[in-house]
Amino acid sequence: MFIAMNRFRITPGREDVFEDLWRSRDSNLEGVPGFREFHLLRGATDEECTLFASHTIWDSRAAFDDWTESESFKKAHSQARAPSGTYLGHPQFEGFEVILEH
Amino acid sequence: MFIAMNRFRITPGREDVFEDLWRSRDSNLEGVPGFREFHLLRGATDEECTLFASHTIWDSRAAFDDWTESESFKKAHSQARAPSGTYLGHPQFEGFEVILEH
Repeated sequence: MFIAMNRFRITPGREDVFEDLWRSRDSNLEGVPGFREFHLLRGATDEECTLFASHTIWDSRAAFDDWTESESFKKAHSQARAPSGTYLGHPQFEGFEVILEH
Repeated sequence: MFIAMNRFRITPGREDVFEDLWRSRDSNLEGVPGFREFHLLRGATDEECTLFASHTIWDSRAAFDDWTESESFKKAHSQARAPSGTYLGHPQFEGFEVILEH
């Protein structure tokens, strides 16, 4: 099991724009081999930003890697983006292997 | 739905010590109201450290908060810790509300 997260630092006051973008977006993930679940997460807000993260669960890192090289991935990432000023810096990717569960 | 993560920066070469500690630990989470799933995650290694994260899924932030004030939480956190030099700095807590899922 593999968890892929992309961390987004969003300008305070722009959270609704960012959330609406994800709500209206087609993730193109249904039916992708090895894909299990997608979540959009909202974390803490400090003076600088509000932290969000996309959070997808996969059977394996290989399944995730295969998806990133697929047409489905290209489609999902060619959709509308939030207006400039919404993001503070680039999203930061983190991939995690599940090594223990209960 | 709420996801609680604690990020641990582990000294390169000490990953096994850290993983064994979690394997032998009793999380005391089974039966806690609102608790759904526990995962220990292993992330990337760079020159400085290997990133790990505990990752628990809860019905709500309130369920998680209640657990942190419980006897069960105290028990889980009074167990053996890794030897000094294993951790690079304190663990960093991050809590996330699930705002979208599919």
